[in-house]
Amino acid sequence: MEVFVNDRFVPEAEAVVPYNDLAVTRGYGVFDFFRMVDGRPIFFADHMHRLQHSAAQLHLQVPYSADAIYEIVLELWKRQPMPTCGIRITVTGGVSSDSYTIGTPNLIVSQMPLKPLLPDDELPAVKVNTYQWIREMAHVKSLNYMTGVWLQPVLQKEALFDALYHDSNGVVSEFPRSNVFAVIQHGKLITPARHILQGITRKYVLELAARQMPVEVRDVTLQELLTASEVFQTNTSRRITPVVSIDGRPIGSGKPGPVAISIYKNMLEKELITG
Amino acid sequence: MEVFVNDRFVPEAEAVVPYNDLAVTRGYGVFDFFRMVDGRPIFFADHMHRLQHSAAQLHLQVPYSADAIYEIVLELWKRQPMPTCGIRITVTGGVSSDSYTIGTPNLIVSQMPLKPLLPDDELPAVKVNTYQWIREMAHVKSLNYMTGVWLQPVLQKEALFDALYHDSNGVVSEFPRSNVFAVIQHGKLITPARHILQGITRKYVLELAARQMPVEVRDVTLQELLTASEVFQTNTSRRITPVVSIDGRPIGSGKPGPVAISIYKNMLEKELITG
Repeated sequence: MEVFVNDRFVPEAEAVVPYNDLAVTRGYGVFDFFRMVDGRPIFFADHMHRLQHSAAQLHLQVPYSADAIYEIVLELWKRQPMPTCGIRITVTGGVSSDSYTIGTPNLIVSQMPLKPLLPDDELPAVKVNTYQWIREMAHVKSLNYMTGVWLQPVLQKEALFDALYHDSNGVVSEFPRSNVFAVIQHGKLITPARHILQGITRKYVLELAARQMPVEVRDVTLQELLTASEVFQTNTSRRITPVVSIDGRPIGSGKPGPVAISIYKNMLEKELITG
Repeated sequence: MEVFVNDRFVPEAEAVVPYNDLAVTRGYGVFDFFRMVDGRPIFFADHMHRLQHSAAQLHLQVPYSADAIYEIVLELWKRQPMPTCGIRITVTGGVSSDSYTIGTPNLIVSQMPLKPLLPDDELPAVKVNTYQWIREMAHVKSLNYMTGVWLQPVLQKEALFDALYHDSNGVVSEFPRSNVFAVIQHGKLITPARHILQGITRKYVLELAARQMPVEVRDVTLQELLTASEVFQTNTSRRITPVVSIDGRPIGSGKPGPVAISIYKNMLEKELITG
């Protein structure tokens, strides 16, 4: 496996970050992650736009233009073609002599195999718990996933798939790596407006859903999720993941619901035609 | 400059972390930092105890005992003796195949020159602003200093030295890298009890101060600081740093106060006799 680091492709074992880069010393940096199908980056422009936004928010500069990154990504794929893979672009805070002042970012473009998206009749149904937490600068796709990673062993002990973040007032925001949607009375689709990362899948789900049902982007309470007919996650790796249990309480029918399946089908079609 | 990485001393240019270590991908890991004077690690046992605590809190294991780390630190110092230096021990989340599950930690022991502590009549007097923020798992010395680093360019624009964190109720907690103390009416010394890192300097300041004045560890409000006769920071690098302005409002006499100077003197003596 090769990895692109700053200005060259190197074997994976040589893809490293200096010990005194702010990414290592302070968890400071940003990234983005997208899928690539048959050599085609999916929603590439959206991901590059978000990467630029995240970097600017953290006073960092992405060292290449989106076009230049596109060429790097294609070259990486040509060197190691995979039917479906994920590409991660990491921009670090850079080496810092005092371990605190922002330096010159290091750029890493790495590739990992992904399973193809499941057919819609094989969508999984997952169980989650809630956890009171609001991510630090949630609108920035930063390197900081401390609470998300920390929760992993805790969730695994209870065979839970994920943790749904909410604030002290019971207003939900997102999962550590996914946005959340719910279908409530009168077939309305709702999703939180605040304290979230602006997911690319979320964006397209909102667009596709608006063609077939009323959609609201606003504060969403835990109580609304518990009485929803459907709840689902959206993210880049799996697109849509139906949630059928929250804190041990069943959601909807206990199976992937019709709205999740319908939007998922539309997403699969959308990916075929969008570059 | 040499750095110890996992099991050997390497030249600084080879002191690196894999691109897919959770420290780089998720800002996940812990560290500690102590001073070394004439080859003697200061408050070493305290720092190792805290490192073990931080690691355990993040489901990580420090790969060596405190005794073994002591030997590594001494060997590092012998290879590059410095009158005063800082030693940083970093324990990363380790390489993670799925970029999320905790791996086997990488250990880095690095050294950097430090200026000797100033004589007490040269203590600086610094100006700070407040910032509403509570650190994520503040009791853990994790790698996550995202907000602290992010604030740096913001503070520098206004020639401010640091930012004092407080919650939405005006209860102060700490600075990004320092604890906070205040001297209030009747010569009482107060310092926040919650949402803080248990500073090693804080611990000794509490111990030394208790010999000469009433001390309270409890919730402290911004209002109390603004009317205090003295406010000061404590941390490992500088020990005690008097604060003479908060949000542009003068604190105390505008100069380092007698309590800060007295405790600082006692700290300097304490360091001479403590290993």
